[in-house]
Amino acid sequence: MSARKLQFGIIGAGRIGRVHAETLSFRLPHTSVRAIADTDCKAARSLAERCNIAIIAESAEQMMADPAIDAIVICSPTGTHADLMVKAAQAGKHIFCEKPISLCLESIDRALKVVDASGVCLQIGFNRRFDSNFRRVHDAVASGEIGVPSLMHIISRDPEPPSAAYVRTSGGIFMDMTIHDFDMARFLMGDEVEEIYTAAGVMIDPEIGKAGDLDTAVVVLRFRGGAIATIDNSRKAAYGYDQRVEILGSLGKIETENRYPNQACISTAKNVFRDLPLNFFMDRYEQSFVAELDSFAAAILDGHATAVPGSDGRITTVMALAARKSYDERRPVRIEEVSG
Amino acid sequence: MSARKLQFGIIGAGRIGRVHAETLSFRLPHTSVRAIADTDCKAARSLAERCNIAIIAESAEQMMADPAIDAIVICSPTGTHADLMVKAAQAGKHIFCEKPISLCLESIDRALKVVDASGVCLQIGFNRRFDSNFRRVHDAVASGEIGVPSLMHIISRDPEPPSAAYVRTSGGIFMDMTIHDFDMARFLMGDEVEEIYTAAGVMIDPEIGKAGDLDTAVVVLRFRGGAIATIDNSRKAAYGYDQRVEILGSLGKIETENRYPNQACISTAKNVFRDLPLNFFMDRYEQSFVAELDSFAAAILDGHATAVPGSDGRITTVMALAARKSYDERRPVRIEEVSG
Amino acid sequence: MSARKLQFGIIGAGRIGRVHAETLSFRLPHTSVRAIADTDCKAARSLAERCNIAIIAESAEQMMADPAIDAIVICSPTGTHADLMVKAAQAGKHIFCEKPISLCLESIDRALKVVDASGVCLQIGFNRRFDSNFRRVHDAVASGEIGVPSLMHIISRDPEPPSAAYVRTSGGIFMDMTIHDFDMARFLMGDEVEEIYTAAGVMIDPEIGKAGDLDTAVVVLRFRGGAIATIDNSRKAAYGYDQRVEILGSLGKIETENRYPNQACISTAKNVFRDLPLNFFMDRYEQSFVAELDSFAAAILDGHATAVPGSDGRITTVMALAARKSYDERRPVRIEEVSG
Amino acid sequence: MSARKLQFGIIGAGRIGRVHAETLSFRLPHTSVRAIADTDCKAARSLAERCNIAIIAESAEQMMADPAIDAIVICSPTGTHADLMVKAAQAGKHIFCEKPISLCLESIDRALKVVDASGVCLQIGFNRRFDSNFRRVHDAVASGEIGVPSLMHIISRDPEPPSAAYVRTSGGIFMDMTIHDFDMARFLMGDEVEEIYTAAGVMIDPEIGKAGDLDTAVVVLRFRGGAIATIDNSRKAAYGYDQRVEILGSLGKIETENRYPNQACISTAKNVFRDLPLNFFMDRYEQSFVAELDSFAAAILDGHATAVPGSDGRITTVMALAARKSYDERRPVRIEEVSG
Repeated sequence: MSARKLQFGIIGAGRIGRVHAETLSFRLPHTSVRAIADTDCKAARSLAERCNIAIIAESAEQMMADPAIDAIVICSPTGTHADLMVKAAQAGKHIFCEKPISLCLESIDRALKVVDASGVCLQIGFNRRFDSNFRRVHDAVASGEIGVPSLMHIISRDPEPPSAAYVRTSGGIFMDMTIHDFDMARFLMGDEVEEIYTAAGVMIDPEIGKAGDLDTAVVVLRFRGGAIATIDNSRKAAYGYDQRVEILGSLGKIETENRYPNQACISTAKNVFRDLPLNFFMDRYEQSFVAELDSFAAAILDGHATAVPGSDGRITTVMALAARKSYDERRPVRIEEVSG
Repeated sequence: MSARKLQFGIIGAGRIGRVHAETLSFRLPHTSVRAIADTDCKAARSLAERCNIAIIAESAEQMMADPAIDAIVICSPTGTHADLMVKAAQAGKHIFCEKPISLCLESIDRALKVVDASGVCLQIGFNRRFDSNFRRVHDAVASGEIGVPSLMHIISRDPEPPSAAYVRTSGGIFMDMTIHDFDMARFLMGDEVEEIYTAAGVMIDPEIGKAGDLDTAVVVLRFRGGAIATIDNSRKAAYGYDQRVEILGSLGKIETENRYPNQACISTAKNVFRDLPLNFFMDRYEQSFVAELDSFAAAILDGHATAVPGSDGRITTVMALAARKSYDERRPVRIEEVSG
Repeated sequence: MSARKLQFGIIGAGRIGRVHAETLSFRLPHTSVRAIADTDCKAARSLAERCNIAIIAESAEQMMADPAIDAIVICSPTGTHADLMVKAAQAGKHIFCEKPISLCLESIDRALKVVDASGVCLQIGFNRRFDSNFRRVHDAVASGEIGVPSLMHIISRDPEPPSAAYVRTSGGIFMDMTIHDFDMARFLMGDEVEEIYTAAGVMIDPEIGKAGDLDTAVVVLRFRGGAIATIDNSRKAAYGYDQRVEILGSLGKIETENRYPNQACISTAKNVFRDLPLNFFMDRYEQSFVAELDSFAAAILDGHATAVPGSDGRITTVMALAARKSYDERRPVRIEEVSG
Repeated sequence: MSARKLQFGIIGAGRIGRVHAETLSFRLPHTSVRAIADTDCKAARSLAERCNIAIIAESAEQMMADPAIDAIVICSPTGTHADLMVKAAQAGKHIFCEKPISLCLESIDRALKVVDASGVCLQIGFNRRFDSNFRRVHDAVASGEIGVPSLMHIISRDPEPPSAAYVRTSGGIFMDMTIHDFDMARFLMGDEVEEIYTAAGVMIDPEIGKAGDLDTAVVVLRFRGGAIATIDNSRKAAYGYDQRVEILGSLGKIETENRYPNQACISTAKNVFRDLPLNFFMDRYEQSFVAELDSFAAAILDGHATAVPGSDGRITTVMALAARKSYDERRPVRIEEVSG
């Protein structure tokens, strides 16, 4: 425990940047944040104060040049991810990068090539793999507890739709929202998808449609081993954030419920109820954000592979492209049509 | 209550024939069974004894000719349904017919034409509409309790696959098993399907595949109003019969659990468990079999339309044909491609 | 199955009399009701019509004298039970008697002596033993599934308090309501109680207090084997009939939930709810009323002991007397102080 | 946020001392630990290293004399609590003291007198009040959501019994274990107890009996307002830590379930199960340990009363004494018989 703490630089002081800064500063014993950078100086300064971060970097480059920094956490807008990964890798910094790596496969491939050549550790921010519910499902499949999986259903619904402005830059629902479910599908099944079919529409906010995006979608995945998965996405669930999964295997099924702020149940003359589930992704997945960085730090310190390599970031982008292509062409699309 | 009881004739003394005979004999106050017919004389005799049925008819024709019989319950093999409906209608008997009416649309159309012209009451045996769980879901949608529905997921899994011999004559999984879910989808959503996509395979019993059928299937339904439904079918759930549904609407969601033989929960040093859910469709849907015949009898006695008209039997067959066509051609199929 | 049906005479055409008449007439294959008697002729006639009962007896004596009657079901007011039991036993009729046998131990002892001497079958109407939930709990204890029981908690709450008029003749909450729980406690634990302590009060309806009774009670039972049980009684649960039990044993616990009319769960912007549990004892315990008479008929036909002998009716009355004595004297009361 | 952090001294580096040290060091933004003291120097040093605590005090006196310390957290053995409270109060330090204050009412009264006179803040470590489940129950009662409470049942069972050696010094089950439930009962009901009856025994470990203690207990509490509570305690639940409560009120009931490590449910050919609930009090109540110190720090900083004053520590000791007296004398005991 007296060992040197890993020093992190964080790029991006927005919502997820703050989560990671607090985790690295306060929750993990062997990490600390040395520098923060954001084009919004005020946000950077505020976060630096909150987390006692020594350096407010003027640029990513400044951070890359700091020999005391071991690893970079990339929380800036998606469009900057690939370039920052390249710079960090070239500077010999380990990289934790939020999803998606990029909306464009060429950028991803270029970045991953540099990262691979550099030998630094890279982990993509698919935090849900570290959630205790999804971890339990993963283990049930991996251990054979439910036998050979044949059917999977993923429910992933947001409490509120994003603004049309956000939608325009997000890459669309498949790249922004379903991408987590694509990762979850592969992670839980331990198999690769070979064909995707999408049925989708605009049922919540016409502005999302005007922005060229969709707000309600069902994506059907066919795995190489024959299993079939459905992903059920909605940009708005009136009762709040809804994140569940069910897998049927030859020996049984496993299904998960949402998380609730309490386990109280109230019976009145009207009905029997409980309070709404945890509504905000940072509450629901709080523990997973700590666990993913703990895992990343352990990979660096122990010199083993990260739990979510760059290739997992690439394949989920491929799946998002295939899902959109299926919607546009109203037909099932095979992965190799898109993966280049 | 002193009113004359409705007199029924039952064709088919198999499993479902027995259920209906007991319901009409013992459970409903204003019905009684006058005659039973089955090509298997022994089965007919045994059921007649059990339910105190006066007449063991030598043929359907004999039953049709009996002026004391008000209504015919058709529980014979699917291939005979359409012809028996025609004969019953021509004899002026009300008709309760098990699903599906026929595997062939032409037969259905011919039979329904005769029935319509005759003016008798016709009800198709989609008993699940009378299940208190599905009824509750229906009412939540119909009353607006969960707002405008956008996504539906139906889980319908059998405890054990049928024999390959049965599979060969059944019309296949979509006609034999999914047909209930097609009916449920329309009933619960209160809307018509316009496009169907199927992803399916053989993951349970290779013999089913050799018989030309499938045992694991996901069917995606697109409704006219824009909602999307997924049906999740498996011929084998190790934990038993699994029949659930979930609908997301603009104001919330409704989901149903299975039925259990008891509400006991046991905690041991190993885990926290309950006994398996009701495993046999006759236990799970026991109450619905009584309710559907009660509803049919009321329609006859009160002279109003039946709850499940012949057209509901036709459209589900169309959907089954479309589902298979989608699987065969690996593309979404629009209803009008099949409905003739 | 072609064997002669057991012929029953029913005394009392009130609520529970009607339940038993319907069960014996329609639900059980080998029983039928030959005669009904009630001081309220109109009630008797109405029930006779409903269940096709041939004879409306003018008196219990007339029924006892009918050689075609095998068994008597006593559903008249509690004060008449003991005398009717004596008469039925002397007439050689088997006896099914609603609880309690009597509010007075001397009457019970006198009646049981005659019954024992006569050799007829006697079963007391503790229907809850035949409920699938409580049966499951019983079996978990009896089979050792949860090890040696140490703590039990019985929750038994009515949806609405009875009228003060009823309360005055009922024998009080312990004799009228808790008596079921006393029976359940003995049945589930498979042990006898040696000491009872009562804490109780009037918290729902002051009229009940004025009538000399209580409406809210906790009764603590100490079993010979050392286990301790608590019974939690309320005459009014706003959310409806509440009937649960939990037992802790050395290997685990078993607990039961209420029964619900459906298994649907609805999530809205306000909360996550389900509909209220079955609210009426005849809905909740419907299946148990059929099962107890089925068991009684089987005991007669097979010549074995009934499932709930007269001694079980006596000991529960003793427990009710002890519970009241404990309340009156504000101290724990040993069973032998009361049992005579 | 730039305000000076509150400086704490912790007495006792045992299990609960470590929890509080970590909370004050890492989880709360405006607190820090300046000194730790323990007669076991090694434990003190180890904790100091883990939490970067500057001073390993040689005695409580040394800590009291340090003007930089604002507050003392007393986590030493029960027998030392009262004296340390007196010293801390005389030194003008705010005090957070683990329960119970003392096994002896005279010591408590003497200590509280000094504390009151000194004007320092005092909070007793009844952490469960800060658990989100019990908080929800409290709020349901306090807000009138379930109406006027009439019946309460508290289940509080440990996963494993303590050693007989521990039992000998613990003050017994009522002082060591039930004391939390006594506090919970008062906190949730918002009323005071006037009479206590205990039924208890040794059903788990005969060594506990030889040490003069009990391992299985039911305690009945009668509140001034008429409500009745039962506390169900066992030193061993095979399935793990079990902490639940149910309250019946005039408008409904509220009940809480245990906390689980995940929300996954698995169905196999054998049964439908979930993993065991959180088994260790530090996992189950983790969040409450943070919240209680957060609340204590806020009381100091804002100058308002603490959430759990010394009088709450006294009355729970009185209740424990009454519970034991009731057991010894086999009769209900009124609070004033014990409270001095």
